[in-house]
Amino acid sequence: MIQNDYYTEENHGTYEMHSIGDFELEDGGMIPNCQLAYATYGALNDAKDNVILIPTWFSGTNIAYDPYIGEERALDPEKYFIIIINQIGNGLSSSPHNSPTPVDMANFPNVRISDDVRAQHQLLTEKFSIEEIALVVGGSMGAQQTYEWAVRYPDMVKRAAPIAGTAKNTDHDFIFTSTLMEAITSDPGWNGGNYQSCEEVADGLKRHANIWAVMGLSTEFYKQKKWDLFEVNSLDEFINGFLQPLFQAMDPNALLTMAWKWQRGDVSRMTNGNLEEALGRIKAKMFVMPIDEDMFFPVRDCEAEQKLIPNSELRVIHSICGHFGLFGGEGADYFNQIDRHLNELLSTPV
Amino acid sequence: MIQNDYYTEENHGTYEMHSIGDFELEDGGMIPNCQLAYATYGALNDAKDNVILIPTWFSGTNIAYDPYIGEERALDPEKYFIIIINQIGNGLSSSPHNSPTPVDMANFPNVRISDDVRAQHQLLTEKFSIEEIALVVGGSMGAQQTYEWAVRYPDMVKRAAPIAGTAKNTDHDFIFTSTLMEAITSDPGWNGGNYQSCEEVADGLKRHANIWAVMGLSTEFYKQKKWDLFEVNSLDEFINGFLQPLFQAMDPNALLTMAWKWQRGDVSRMTNGNLEEALGRIKAKMFVMPIDEDMFFPVRDCEAEQKLIPNSELRVIHSICGHFGLFGGEGADYFNQIDRHLNELLSTPV
Repeated sequence: MIQNDYYTEENHGTYEMHSIGDFELEDGGMIPNCQLAYATYGALNDAKDNVILIPTWFSGTNIAYDPYIGEERALDPEKYFIIIINQIGNGLSSSPHNSPTPVDMANFPNVRISDDVRAQHQLLTEKFSIEEIALVVGGSMGAQQTYEWAVRYPDMVKRAAPIAGTAKNTDHDFIFTSTLMEAITSDPGWNGGNYQSCEEVADGLKRHANIWAVMGLSTEFYKQKKWDLFEVNSLDEFINGFLQPLFQAMDPNALLTMAWKWQRGDVSRMTNGNLEEALGRIKAKMFVMPIDEDMFFPVRDCEAEQKLIPNSELRVIHSICGHFGLFGGEGADYFNQIDRHLNELLSTPV
Repeated sequence: MIQNDYYTEENHGTYEMHSIGDFELEDGGMIPNCQLAYATYGALNDAKDNVILIPTWFSGTNIAYDPYIGEERALDPEKYFIIIINQIGNGLSSSPHNSPTPVDMANFPNVRISDDVRAQHQLLTEKFSIEEIALVVGGSMGAQQTYEWAVRYPDMVKRAAPIAGTAKNTDHDFIFTSTLMEAITSDPGWNGGNYQSCEEVADGLKRHANIWAVMGLSTEFYKQKKWDLFEVNSLDEFINGFLQPLFQAMDPNALLTMAWKWQRGDVSRMTNGNLEEALGRIKAKMFVMPIDEDMFFPVRDCEAEQKLIPNSELRVIHSICGHFGLFGGEGADYFNQIDRHLNELLSTPV
């Protein structure tokens, strides 16, 4: 275990911890006393049928969804019990830097999207006796988990909205993610995963941030110099003052754990590689919501999957920020789209 | 100087060398006895009005344009005197690895697109007494040089066809190119530019290739598994068997010299930053030819510039290979488009 002051409630808001015990992983290995960090909004009703589950994205935590939630919004804590569960390895839930031996640091095992969803299922059923989810919604790796939920627990998930993500990761996404990982592992300070502080990997994390700058936004974002959407004033500030410090505060092994998982997200692992069969299992009413300027989860990739899902519709979100539209920098221009679709989805009888 | 067996006539076809003497650079510094490597097809006619000039792209040499040229093609050596001039720093013309002190290796000065175009102008006028160019055509950094030619020597350039490139490099292109450079300079073997062999920088060159894999093609190329367009059979072969060895054979400092130049291509340097004024100077009939799937020279960026060019048309090329469409892997599907537009351009009276 090492100290990393980024992963605190001061930075990520209030969250609870729940142990799911010794958790066996799909790829082998086990996380002893596996902890899930989760944040809730609103209250579970007596019928336990007002649950909205939100899984987290790469490098994100529960706090990232705070701007998606509010009174009079689609994700309304007055109506719903909203639970955001931090994915394993994201720095708040059990992760390389906060786990004791034998799964500390470089010894942390490989975790899959399917492991996360099984872990979340255990939390919801054990801790809250939840048997029905009104909506699973999440962005990016949160979308990967949303798909996994809908395929793995089709009777439990009534509605689902994967935003800017896919059910089966693409080759292009795989190689993109590899460059993000190589930016970190090529830093001698990474030391095979056994550094003392993320500061020793500052160069690698900086390169990691720089690749995100290329792929995470859109060419049009840069052309129109939309720095103000991230509350900075120049290209230099956007890269050196926002993106680089953001990633340099994070744990390198956490990013690598999530990246490995992202690369292998694939619901067709449940059907011997048959994606059509896997997506055909979905019973949820689903809105597939890609972002039009996304450079690595492009609309056409998401649409191809949507066509294989029985009770689904394609709802394209516009954002000049591309994938980072998820961050919500565009404010109402973005969230009004999200809310409109989610309101419609939530009001659809199932 | 160090030996690099990649830069031979065996690999790049026959070329001539011409010295333009001691060549002063726009950013300061000078290349003593600066050598330009050039290849020609066909013969210069008596009127010296049948010249087609082709500048090279990043990492490419004269040989890369061989599939663009042929009898009954637009670029027909039976009709035209076609001259391909290798850009400074590309490994064949004066470059870090082949230059003696005081400009060897890490001491090689920064070179700009404008330097290349001035050097090429000197070659054409000194060596061949050419005063008129029927067509300047080039891809990517070759397009950057094409724009520079049309703005810098408007009376000399009669027609111009920049393919998959811009007149003023974008911020997004700048940061993308930075990641390509960081992949190399982060390799301890690069040693500030003073290695003994490119093999010492193999890891950095591999990461460089991997980033090209993400941005150089298109998501659809990977989705449709179009490996056969590069004469390989799998994703693994495409990355590990084609792209990585390709870049690992090249000189790291050469790639860095070209990348620095690419980042700063900007015809508005001639007009105090006024792009509209610079492009307004162009007298050539110009076809602006972006590739529809290009991830970093997108059509809309090229179209915005085209609208500022008096006698120009937008001619979009389709290629599932994105920017690497330039490599011509699609054969007739690609070259028929190029030939059709260039035939029309060449038959336009000016």
